Formats: sequence, structure tokens, C-alpha cells
Amino acid sequence: MYPKTIQKLIEIFSKFPTVGQRTATRFVFYLIKRDRKEIEELSKAILDLKEKIKFCKNCFKPFEGEGEICEICRDKTRDKSLLCIVEKETDLEAIEKTKKYKGIYFILGGPVSAIKKEELKKLRIKELEERLKDREVKEIIIATNPTTEGEAIALYLERKLKNSGKKITRLGRGLPTGGELEYADEETLGAAFESRK
Amino acid sequence: MYPKTIQKLIEIFSKFPTVGQRTATRFVFYLIKRDRKEIEELSKAILDLKEKIKFCKNCFKPFEGEGEICEICRDKTRDKSLLCIVEKETDLEAIEKTKKYKGIYFILGGPVSAIKKEELKKLRIKELEERLKDREVKEIIIATNPTTEGEAIALYLERKLKNSGKKITRLGRGLPTGGELEYADEETLGAAFESRK
Repeated sequence: MYPKTIQKLIEIFSKFPTVGQRTATRFVFYLIKRDRKEIEELSKAILDLKEKIKFCKNCFKPFEGEGEICEICRDKTRDKSLLCIVEKETDLEAIEKTKKYKGIYFILGGPVSAIKKEELKKLRIKELEERLKDREVKEIIIATNPTTEGEAIALYLERKLKNSGKKITRLGRGLPTGGELEYADEETLGAAFESRK
Repeated sequence: MYPKTIQKLIEIFSKFPTVGQRTATRFVFYLIKRDRKEIEELSKAILDLKEKIKFCKNCFKPFEGEGEICEICRDKTRDKSLLCIVEKETDLEAIEKTKKYKGIYFILGGPVSAIKKEELKKLRIKELEERLKDREVKEIIIATNPTTEGEAIALYLERKLKNSGKKITRLGRGLPTGGELEYADEETLGAAFESRK
């Protein structure tokens, strides 16, 4: 048996996503070999998550600094008539990296297994409906993932929002850039034909 | 770009073994969703590693509590004439779980890539030689892993210790229990023939 302190930390790490007992143990022995400065840095960085990170009242993006609104929602150059709904923070960051989108966002709080109906309740549907009372928003871009779960969420949203009086769009489907035709799955290739222009 | 606090933590996590940028990001967003109590618990558990864990002066096993010697080395019922050399703490724990071994240990501090000679210097060779001055030790069991690196370390140790005046043994090789003959690799099957009894 490992000492209690080590056991405890293995237990916590093994709850991390993708991490099992074995990897959690490796993490602890990796940390045991770090020097005091690194350990204190990590310990503090974790505490800082709770102390410094806030969630934007408008879009639920995590942010640091003054006020209740994140830097994107506050940015006067962004198009407030376009609202892009994403499942999670990392999806938002992926879109931001393209530098192609100048609207604002709403983080729904996924991914959830949308096959189970009660899981949909974990999404910020009420908050979204509240957000959509904003008349400035003209178009809603549903940017959930092109997965079974994402599709189910998208369909659910489309149904839910069809009477919102806003234009509702979805991200285009087709071949990924750099992908090769012969390796594309049927769904993707089919979608590429449909979205041809 | 994520807020600084998040970036910082992603950076630290992505140095963990087996963890890349992507998994590190997942870790951070997993933590962001935990409540304050859990976060403080994790932060403290990490600090405790430095504050509570000591390394045994005899065998370098991490331990908690009084004194400079771990509970195994202190245990009067263990056979101090048998010294088992392992690469790392997790190997020691694996052996302890078998409940078959009643001797003591020495943690060499691996794994290292023994193909590079300078890596061997990271092992506790000097400390081992010091430890072996103990006349109580009669037999040295080299229990490095049956991998290329472990084998190289074992050969290095055998050469280094051959004039120590102690009996030197290695762990037996053969079929793993529960394994099937048709799936065993040639090396293992060959070793199983050699070690037949």
C-alpha cells in the first residue's frame, strides 16, 4: 500500500477524464520527483481556477478580470446580431482560432449523451432562451459537433427555437481541407455533394 | 486564447506523462466544473506530497510518518538477508501485492533509457554500493523489468556487483499465468522452455 498522501492523490487523479488508476499513479510519481517550486506553482494554479476564473453572464465563456461579461461579449467590433451556439469552451476556442467568425457565442455546456433525454436537462436551455430575448440577435448559428450527440442536440435546439423569430443556420458539411476523397466516409462525401457550389 | 490562469494550468498538465495539450485542456475544464471543496482538496493533496512524503534512507521507498526508515525496512519480521532491486516504486508495490516476498528492497530510480550510457548515471548506483556494505545482505535479487531497458540495467548491475561477495539472482522467466501459448511471443516461450521444471 502506498502512503495515505499518495493514495489520496491517486484517487483524485483517477477521476480525471481519460485517467485510470495506472496513469493516476504515474502522475503522482511524476509529481513526487518535481521540486518544491513546481509543486507550489501547480497547487496555486489549481486554486486560481476557482479564485480568478468567472463565467460570462452572456455566453458562459470562462474569463478573467473585471466585470461580469467576457472580452468577446464586451468587444464593440463584434457583430452582436450573430449568435453561435457551441457545446463547450474548447469548441469556441477552435472557432476563434479560424479568425473567420466575428459574431458572439453561447456555450450550451455539453457534451451530453443526448440519447438520454434527461441529459439534455444539463444543457443551458433556459439560459439560452433568456439570452435570446435580446432583440439584437438576428441569426442563431447552431455549431454543435457533427457527432450523433451533437446532431441530437442540434435537432432539439432547432425544434425549440423555431418560433424564436430568429434565422437559424447550421455549419456547412463537406470534405475536410487536406482530407482525401478515397478516405472520406459516405456521410461526409454525401454531404459534400449536397453542399456543392 | 484561454484566460492566463487556464493557459498556465494547461501548460503544467501537458508536462505530465502521457498527457498532451488536448488532454491537459480537458483536465482544466474538468477541474473548472468541480466545486470549491474538491479544488482545495486537490491543491492541498499536491502540497502534501512535498510536506509529508519522505524517502527511506535505506531503500528510497516514499513513506509517511516518523523517522528516516520506511515501514518495510523497519519491519522486524522481514528477511534482511534478501535485497530486491527494482527500477521504481510501482514495481515494489507490485511485488508487495503478491505477498510472496519477505525480504527488503532497493529502488534504483528508473526507468531510464539504458541504451544511452549517460542515463545510467541517473540511477542510484553509488547509493546501492553504499547499501551493500551491509553484511546482513546475502542475496541480491535483480528485479528490473523484462524490457530492453530493464535488461540493460540488469546486465550493468550484474557486472558491477559480481565482486560484491553476495549471491546474485534474477526473476524467473516464463509464461504469464492466464496467458495462452499461441499468443506468447518467441522470447517468452523460449524462456518458458529454459525454465521448465
